Amino acid sequence: MRMVDIIHKKRLGEELNTEEIQFFIQGYTTETIPDYQASALLMAIYFKGMTENETATLTQAMVDSGETIDLSAIDGPKVDKHSTGGVGDKTTLITGPLVASVGVPVAKMSGRGLGHTGGTLDKLESIAGLTVELTKEMFVENVNTHKLAVAGQTGNLAPADKKLYALRDVTATVESIPLIASSIMSKKLASGAESIVLDVKTGSGAFMKTVEDATSLANAMVKIGNNLERNTVAVISDMNQPLGFEVGNANEVKEAIEVLQGKPVADLRRLALELASHMTVLAGVFDSYELAYHALEKNLDNGKAFEAFKAFVAAQGGDVAMIEDVTKLPSAKHHLEVTAETEGYISEIDAEAIGIAAMFLGAGRAAKDDQINYGVGITLHKKIGDNVKAGEALATLHYDQKNSLDDSHNKVKGAFNISTTPVDTKHLIYKVIK
Amino acid sequence: MRMVDIIHKKRLGEELNTEEIQFFIQGYTTETIPDYQASALLMAIYFKGMTENETATLTQAMVDSGETIDLSAIDGPKVDKHSTGGVGDKTTLITGPLVASVGVPVAKMSGRGLGHTGGTLDKLESIAGLTVELTKEMFVENVNTHKLAVAGQTGNLAPADKKLYALRDVTATVESIPLIASSIMSKKLASGAESIVLDVKTGSGAFMKTVEDATSLANAMVKIGNNLERNTVAVISDMNQPLGFEVGNANEVKEAIEVLQGKPVADLRRLALELASHMTVLAGVFDSYELAYHALEKNLDNGKAFEAFKAFVAAQGGDVAMIEDVTKLPSAKHHLEVTAETEGYISEIDAEAIGIAAMFLGAGRAAKDDQINYGVGITLHKKIGDNVKAGEALATLHYDQKNSLDDSHNKVKGAFNISTTPVDTKHLIYKVIK
Repeated sequence: MRMVDIIHKKRLGEELNTEEIQFFIQGYTTETIPDYQASALLMAIYFKGMTENETATLTQAMVDSGETIDLSAIDGPKVDKHSTGGVGDKTTLITGPLVASVGVPVAKMSGRGLGHTGGTLDKLESIAGLTVELTKEMFVENVNTHKLAVAGQTGNLAPADKKLYALRDVTATVESIPLIASSIMSKKLASGAESIVLDVKTGSGAFMKTVEDATSLANAMVKIGNNLERNTVAVISDMNQPLGFEVGNANEVKEAIEVLQGKPVADLRRLALELASHMTVLAGVFDSYELAYHALEKNLDNGKAFEAFKAFVAAQGGDVAMIEDVTKLPSAKHHLEVTAETEGYISEIDAEAIGIAAMFLGAGRAAKDDQINYGVGITLHKKIGDNVKAGEALATLHYDQKNSLDDSHNKVKGAFNISTTPVDTKHLIYKVIK
Repeated sequence: MRMVDIIHKKRLGEELNTEEIQFFIQGYTTETIPDYQASALLMAIYFKGMTENETATLTQAMVDSGETIDLSAIDGPKVDKHSTGGVGDKTTLITGPLVASVGVPVAKMSGRGLGHTGGTLDKLESIAGLTVELTKEMFVENVNTHKLAVAGQTGNLAPADKKLYALRDVTATVESIPLIASSIMSKKLASGAESIVLDVKTGSGAFMKTVEDATSLANAMVKIGNNLERNTVAVISDMNQPLGFEVGNANEVKEAIEVLQGKPVADLRRLALELASHMTVLAGVFDSYELAYHALEKNLDNGKAFEAFKAFVAAQGGDVAMIEDVTKLPSAKHHLEVTAETEGYISEIDAEAIGIAAMFLGAGRAAKDDQINYGVGITLHKKIGDNVKAGEALATLHYDQKNSLDDSHNKVKGAFNISTTPVDTKHLIYKVIK
């Protein structure tokens, strides 16, 4: 078998068979197939696509390229959640304890953030003492005891995906639905998930700008899941503005805690309940979405979800006093309001710009080794549809140092669009795909 | 400027500007742009094509990537001819002296062959003593004195094209009209040609299988020539069977000499006259194709073309006695006839198969360092449309060694298709594109 023939076949738009896809992934992982042939194939895939079979085969081959995590020591059904990424997205901090509160084990491997704000691990580490460096034994024990543990990804999972992703990034071949879908799913499968709930973001602040594109990606991922015998559900949710009101690290933890304590932060609570409902149905704990939703809502309001969070934080060494009194969480020294220049209705909040503004303040990493400042961030006071008067605060910047403050301020100011006529609030959940 | 943005732009089907194309070619030549980005761009070009402007700019950038040959020391208009390659194609051996015979200087840089038979240099070297290793001074002096010199390509001409061609070969991106056209034209331009006549082959034995594809390539090359201020004419000629009757090296020289002496080898004489007519019109020696054709035909019949050939051979150290008596040219020890099994009319002769059969006998190189045996080769006795009786000879194999003889015999036998009903002869010249 020759790689050039595989490229040629795909270039003609023909379906690659299992042997050809395995030959490519194994060869690329072991470096017998060079980058320049891989990138030519990726570009041909960009133009000619992949069938459902090819995409599933590619995903499995990438899983098989490295180690896989064995979660069999954990009792019960293993269900995982994945978000395609958005600004102010702290749902994992809510769905984790919420799902755990009804007895479904959540064995969460997570990553650090690169870009506007920290990842789930960074956000959790804003709680003093909390560690995500767990041994495999502790991880399993914590999940079995508390139904929730969050740890940094260990092991060489899906190395073919890592190599391919780095190559796609520099060869303009990122935007291919089968390649994106197989990349995400290979990491989830290698992490040992049996059931997967996907939160596919759409809108100006998301990678998928339109509902149509998000639907294509969601369909591709659900089909991969089904073909590889994982129950998979995808929720398509809005990212035309940040989720909730807080963007940063410690302030996102604070907002998540408030939701866990029953506070009705409209979009954030709604999305967390939606995702957790599908997770618990897939886990077999509830017979229907409606039953799950009602039970989970109750656990937010009666404090059980928050109790699960506290138990998890304590088990991983975190300072529980800090989450019982969120004013003890890290916070910035200074605060600056961004005000509206005209009266009207908020018609747009560029989520990506808000994320970048938070990164300017120190909430995210521009480069891999940058340090995150947990206390800084941005609080929004207005969301799409809200009325605002001239001079009224749109957002508050929480900062420690003045460098980049002007840039951040300008970015946030520019992110808001104000209309003279009333604007509808944004739809939050567009579709559920099973 | 970033290469990834250039790839992205082309992926979207947008036109690259001069700076972007130069950035790519310069960066690729100097190895600041890696192969994997180049191959992704090549695949995007395969799918999205290039405009006339882009193709001309790419060609010029490849010319500028290395040395160019300065022919200004040669008196008169410099005209070159290029064939896209076929089996039995010895037209350069005829057009060179023929054009020289009417006073047009032919400063020919040529290459060695890789594949079925030798290149022009290899064929000429079957004449004892003849050298193609000329100093620059000798080359210029010979052209000025005899109007014809043939030398091996020296200098680092269009290195970007060499690198890109090698990359295309292993990434399934060869078959792109703008890439093929710019590759051919960059080499011609770097060799110093002012006017160019292109012989674009079409048919089963050519790279362009259909007249339509050959026309696209011819159009692209003529447009490059016009955009870069070179008078360019393309002739689309048939390669559904070998050209002439001889395939090999010394036997091809013999056939070329026969045509130079006025022998009416139908297709070979006709094509040589066609190409030489356009060359001399472009050189400004004749006012019209008709005048050129008549004058050149006369010089084949009155011996002047052959005299020009003799002068050229003598000037480059070749044994003139050998070309005055072609039986003195190298020849093979043994001969084997390939006979027809049934009576009928020749409907097909797979030119590529005949070429490969000749290579099996030793007439061509399978690898770059293989030695060519000048005396071996194949003589066809029948061409498309000819009647043949059962047992009659279709071709003769001239061989020295028995290894690969069976393979060669089978290949030649399989190349001929015999029909029970009469078959039209093949059209030779399909189109002329200016």
